[in-house]
Amino acid sequence: MLVVQKFGGTSVGTVDRIREVARRCIATQQQGHDVVVIVSAMSGETNRLLALARQVNDDPSSEHERELDVIASTGEQVSVGLVSLAIAKEGGRAQSFTGGQCRIITDSSFTRARIKSIDGQKIHEALGLGKIAVVAGFQGIDEEGNITTLGRGGSDTSGVAIAAALKADACEIYTDVDGVYTADPNVCPSARKIARISYEEMLELASLGAKVLQIRSVEFGMKYGVKIHVRSSFNMNEGTWVVPEEKQMEDVLVAGVTVAKDEAKVTLLGVPDKPGIAAKIFRPLSEANIVVDMIIQNISDAGRTDLTFTVPRGDLKRAVELIKRTLPEMAEAGIKTDDSICKVSVVGVGMRSHAGVAQKMFELLAEEGINILMISTSEIKISVVVEAKYAELAVRVLHDGFGLGNQPAK
Amino acid sequence: MLVVQKFGGTSVGTVDRIREVARRCIATQQQGHDVVVIVSAMSGETNRLLALARQVNDDPSSEHERELDVIASTGEQVSVGLVSLAIAKEGGRAQSFTGGQCRIITDSSFTRARIKSIDGQKIHEALGLGKIAVVAGFQGIDEEGNITTLGRGGSDTSGVAIAAALKADACEIYTDVDGVYTADPNVCPSARKIARISYEEMLELASLGAKVLQIRSVEFGMKYGVKIHVRSSFNMNEGTWVVPEEKQMEDVLVAGVTVAKDEAKVTLLGVPDKPGIAAKIFRPLSEANIVVDMIIQNISDAGRTDLTFTVPRGDLKRAVELIKRTLPEMAEAGIKTDDSICKVSVVGVGMRSHAGVAQKMFELLAEEGINILMISTSEIKISVVVEAKYAELAVRVLHDGFGLGNQPAK
Repeated sequence: MLVVQKFGGTSVGTVDRIREVARRCIATQQQGHDVVVIVSAMSGETNRLLALARQVNDDPSSEHERELDVIASTGEQVSVGLVSLAIAKEGGRAQSFTGGQCRIITDSSFTRARIKSIDGQKIHEALGLGKIAVVAGFQGIDEEGNITTLGRGGSDTSGVAIAAALKADACEIYTDVDGVYTADPNVCPSARKIARISYEEMLELASLGAKVLQIRSVEFGMKYGVKIHVRSSFNMNEGTWVVPEEKQMEDVLVAGVTVAKDEAKVTLLGVPDKPGIAAKIFRPLSEANIVVDMIIQNISDAGRTDLTFTVPRGDLKRAVELIKRTLPEMAEAGIKTDDSICKVSVVGVGMRSHAGVAQKMFELLAEEGINILMISTSEIKISVVVEAKYAELAVRVLHDGFGLGNQPAK
Repeated sequence: MLVVQKFGGTSVGTVDRIREVARRCIATQQQGHDVVVIVSAMSGETNRLLALARQVNDDPSSEHERELDVIASTGEQVSVGLVSLAIAKEGGRAQSFTGGQCRIITDSSFTRARIKSIDGQKIHEALGLGKIAVVAGFQGIDEEGNITTLGRGGSDTSGVAIAAALKADACEIYTDVDGVYTADPNVCPSARKIARISYEEMLELASLGAKVLQIRSVEFGMKYGVKIHVRSSFNMNEGTWVVPEEKQMEDVLVAGVTVAKDEAKVTLLGVPDKPGIAAKIFRPLSEANIVVDMIIQNISDAGRTDLTFTVPRGDLKRAVELIKRTLPEMAEAGIKTDDSICKVSVVGVGMRSHAGVAQKMFELLAEEGINILMISTSEIKISVVVEAKYAELAVRVLHDGFGLGNQPAK
């Protein structure tokens, strides 16, 4: 078997932790596997480097953004060197690779590049010599040979993309939790670890607030059929496998419940009820890279309507200012905002074949007196916006109401 | 003109110093020159990185030495990113280059690689766009694409080698002194800055204790005819030009006086006076990478002789142990060591055409009662070993005795 193991910044944050990573890689190799390790920068290192860069130039032009990647990418480069040295110290053989050395080719969007292709040949050569290949996560080079970084969380994506390129049998993502849970165990004591979950479900959970896996890494896994194993770097327990959908997954109505707290709601009052009006409102937001999530338009009978939508909480002020500046006539009748909301979601491929999930969700919330402010659905998820103070209660009510705490984890 | 400017670790040691480097580069460019900047790691950074590596693995096998270079090379990579950002902040345009990106090809001797070739094309492209090219010193890649470092002081060599490859009109080496002096001004108050000095003289001075330029960088400069300008990063004064020999340099008997204090003397008593005996003695030292400098053999009449030689002081203990172990019969009659010696040298191309320099040197020392323990000469230098306590006195006596303090600096 060819196994890719990805370790985050905390897992290589100290010399002792680096030794543990080395021992785990060697143990995996001794089980007869080829091992490729992807590592992040030591925890805190990327922030230190970028802070140094900001001290020198707090607002580089787009031409000079490339230098941020030159600087930030050194964090992972140090890590791969150290992990390789640790493997050698523990009696193994290792070879490190920068993104450029193993030809992780990306586009040229510095600080947020996307992987275009990976040439696995050099890694295969190292594996063929009995070495553990230690690859820098989070980075690549563009066609011109410029160093690029994938943006925050990009090491997960590196791991899965390399697993895809090498046709690895599994991509293990090591983290500080045991796997993916039916809900946040800190909020919901009855939450259970999920044994197997489909890419689609994982994507929805990741999009809706679960932080255990980066969204783009799941997309990559789904696209190339990479089996992702999310597990703890502190023990040898099986974690959660993220895999193609399986028959028995459909038997479960809801796989998980999640909550996103970093949202805010904007309501435009008395908007003219005319075709094209939504496009007009959302164009400036889109151009400013503000992601609008849910949108609700209330029908009115006076040729005017109220329009409500949600944006990331951090973008609320900017969104309102943009609308006031670019569309003063929209702001005329007033803009209301609310940043004490949250979005609670239930996710599960079982919804496709089972009716009544939405109905049951609304009833469960109603029983606790939780008022629903907005609703949005997809084929395998239902999200509702409720007042922020109900966040934890709503998660517990839905989690237990859908029987997630009582049944063996999927 | 195309000007290469090399800045050491102290010159980029803080954010403020980095800004000063940026301003100097821009000022040079605004005088109408193309500018290529070579930078070292921020002072202390290489040591920090190597200490981290040592914590993980204090004695990597030769296979894993490559990882030390992966780690150490990040120091310069961060510097080139920061200097480029600083140039941008000051209103200029810059592009950074790692050793690999500007194709500085070296052999594969990790941690002490030698430059084989440099492809200046990418740098010329950046210059053609009106950018300042900012190149990481101290590093390259081998034919396989492995990252290599040139070993301590290698940034000077990078600077001169890049200047040679680009056919630069000058290579400016910025340092914390004003240039090359006729003697160490701390020892000899009448020392003067030398305006122009030949490669050969500079090479001798660097080999004999002057620390202002790394020896290999001078060799490179001589080989490719690169004009090196050693100057201060703290002011705009002209420093010392290291250039091909010029006619008027021969008019000066002695260009400079220098002293090396890190030497020690070993005397083997009663060595058999037979052919091949020297080879037998020095082979184990050579194999152990101990550099033997001066060697003197006293003629004896009893078929036995005393043999004296000097080694770096740090290698003294090892050298004696080696001889005792590998050649016990040599050690029979006794080994005497002396680590309180120093080597004082006078250097100048004028010696070639002027007789009597050695005689004058001996007389000057004798007048002060300084006993000469060993003598060694080359075409353009005379070195003597004297007791360490006379080091400063000998330098002053020779410096002023040869008229270096009285004449305008060459």
